[in-house]
Amino acid sequence: MEKLTLIKVGGKIVEEEAPLKRLLADFAAIEGHKVLVHGGGRSATAMASKLGIESKMVNGRRVTDAETLKVVTMVYGGLVNKTIVAKLQAIDINALGLTGADMNYMLSDKRPVGEVDYGFVGDVKAVNATLLADLISKGIVPVLAPLTHDKKGNLLNTNADTIAGEAAKALAKYFDVTLVYCFEKKGVLRDEQDDDSVIPEIDKALFEQYVAEGIIQGGMIPKLENAFEAIAAGVKQVIITKADAIDGIAGTKVV
Amino acid sequence: MEKLTLIKVGGKIVEEEAPLKRLLADFAAIEGHKVLVHGGGRSATAMASKLGIESKMVNGRRVTDAETLKVVTMVYGGLVNKTIVAKLQAIDINALGLTGADMNYMLSDKRPVGEVDYGFVGDVKAVNATLLADLISKGIVPVLAPLTHDKKGNLLNTNADTIAGEAAKALAKYFDVTLVYCFEKKGVLRDEQDDDSVIPEIDKALFEQYVAEGIIQGGMIPKLENAFEAIAAGVKQVIITKADAIDGIAGTKVV
Repeated sequence: MEKLTLIKVGGKIVEEEAPLKRLLADFAAIEGHKVLVHGGGRSATAMASKLGIESKMVNGRRVTDAETLKVVTMVYGGLVNKTIVAKLQAIDINALGLTGADMNYMLSDKRPVGEVDYGFVGDVKAVNATLLADLISKGIVPVLAPLTHDKKGNLLNTNADTIAGEAAKALAKYFDVTLVYCFEKKGVLRDEQDDDSVIPEIDKALFEQYVAEGIIQGGMIPKLENAFEAIAAGVKQVIITKADAIDGIAGTKVV
Repeated sequence: MEKLTLIKVGGKIVEEEAPLKRLLADFAAIEGHKVLVHGGGRSATAMASKLGIESKMVNGRRVTDAETLKVVTMVYGGLVNKTIVAKLQAIDINALGLTGADMNYMLSDKRPVGEVDYGFVGDVKAVNATLLADLISKGIVPVLAPLTHDKKGNLLNTNADTIAGEAAKALAKYFDVTLVYCFEKKGVLRDEQDDDSVIPEIDKALFEQYVAEGIIQGGMIPKLENAFEAIAAGVKQVIITKADAIDGIAGTKVV
């Protein structure tokens, strides 16, 4: 099988001109097939604020009422996505921007109202990767916005990490997939105070040991659990690293 | 060759819930391959106004400065396009929303500054329809937003009638294309005061006669000239009609 690298980036790197330019140049230099998954939360919050819409976050997730859904549809599906696509085209990457509704590639269910009503937020239930894989094999580079749909006519706001994981798992049937999660650190750290204490490689046993010892904690636990789930579902490797390190792709390798 | 119907709709029909629902149901019922091209000017003007950006129109065209380009990218490429795509998916039409930057399908040059500086407005210079035609033949229904790109990293605001005409001409190499321009009247009228005076069929000779006689005038002249140009470039037929008449596709047939 041919190689495919799926990079997930979020935060200000996709929303500010100079870091975005560097990121896209590094991304373009990656050999083989590739996919980019982006966030855009800062731009969405800024746009909502300009429009007089308050951004409510619960457990790091955006509560998405009807007005907020319009904002994220504009910002994620329009502004951020199409800006990236146009900039990739300028450096000869044949990008195609997609939401889950496009080609019905990613379906979700509106999250049931529990203690929190997240509104128009989707939990992924199915990925149709056949056409996507076909386009990738023809040289297309999908750029995936953090939006899915319920096939009842609604777009749903969906976490970009989840989009990346689900797309990677579905594409693992067609390609040798490396899934790269970019965040603000160089990798999973042994010591949160020391940015250079990156754990180079981690397997399930070491992960469980580190969690028991309190070395790995907080938000890194679900991130790594998702990574192990992707590996179990056929993704070749998962790397957790910093966005400015994707040229050599260093960081923590999850095996 | 297989048949393809390309429908261009603009105005409030794509921006209000009930008429849009009816339009999409009629569109879904059209047999064979199809493409939808949409505008979204009213929504763009409304969004610009909410953001404190003044909309300037010259000769019916939006002057598109950098801030306005962000608005049309959000509204055309995001809100209007993805809302249509999600609603088409709900009625089993496998839609794919595109700007010209996506798959590099439509390239334009930024309009040179003449008497008017239109800003980030594009004049179409090339259409790459190979992948588009391949996707259409696989059952995908492209939904085209009125945005192109210059392959230098810029999205450009582009008239939806032009997008429709250029896409139709490029797709005529692969399909028997019927291009349908929807506007507010049932067709080209012999008498502007009489909505039922639709000219059923018009060829170049009759058009020239009617222009000479003053029966056809104003904005209908460039519309029909574009239609004849499309016919000359291989489009099978062009129909000018009202959006609520696309179920039977009546109106004026340009031959």
